[in-house]
Amino acid sequence: MKPSHIEHIGIAVKNLDEQIAYYQDVLGLTCYNIEEVADQKVRTAFFMVGQTKIELLESTDPDGPVGKFIEKKGEGVHHIAYAVDSVQDFLDSASEKGVTLIDKTPRKGAEGLSIAFLHPKSTFGVLTELCEHPEK
Amino acid sequence: MKPSHIEHIGIAVKNLDEQIAYYQDVLGLTCYNIEEVADQKVRTAFFMVGQTKIELLESTDPDGPVGKFIEKKGEGVHHIAYAVDSVQDFLDSASEKGVTLIDKTPRKGAEGLSIAFLHPKSTFGVLTELCEHPEK
Repeated sequence: MKPSHIEHIGIAVKNLDEQIAYYQDVLGLTCYNIEEVADQKVRTAFFMVGQTKIELLESTDPDGPVGKFIEKKGEGVHHIAYAVDSVQDFLDSASEKGVTLIDKTPRKGAEGLSIAFLHPKSTFGVLTELCEHPEK
Repeated sequence: MKPSHIEHIGIAVKNLDEQIAYYQDVLGLTCYNIEEVADQKVRTAFFMVGQTKIELLESTDPDGPVGKFIEKKGEGVHHIAYAVDSVQDFLDSASEKGVTLIDKTPRKGAEGLSIAFLHPKSTFGVLTELCEHPEK
């Protein structure tokens, strides 16, 4: 049940192109993919740092989750995603322990992963995602 | 200059013991160290997830940086720390590119690391730390 690593850190940004330039020029990372996730109403840019991706999230709709987040809190870390063997097993276990779930079953996320979110009210303000790679 | 991995994710918490229980029971992680960092006015708990530490930060003083953060923003992700070969080289390079620094030279952080912070105004709201392991 223990997560194997931090799969990604999701960061809410206002201007994807401006921030890609910052992550490349200042932090020395390389953007290897830009992808629109219609379901989440975001355009995302990915960078790899060791085992972990930095996932920049630009809202494509002010009423989407990232648009609302930026309106309320400003730019910054939006969520942390843990890589697990089975998202469903993790959700079942967390639910049994009284954690409120946003997703009761996994759904499809960026890069073809199965994903689900725990509710930040149950996770002390940290929006927490679980990710399962499809080849597993 | 490229960071090798995410060294840790710092999370501001109100009650360290309550959150240690959550990270252990729900996320399945193991707390391997609890340390007070007087300089930062925090008590910290560490968990390892792959290459990355989760570092929970409980303020020991309402006027400390984590106490102020929680008062303003509530509990949640406080900073992201990248592992680099040389903090000083990274700071010099970032400064040349116009990034505002909190620390112009490295100082001592938790677990004996050399650390420095970039200013969140230059990093789009994400408080960013650089870490260098002393054995390097």
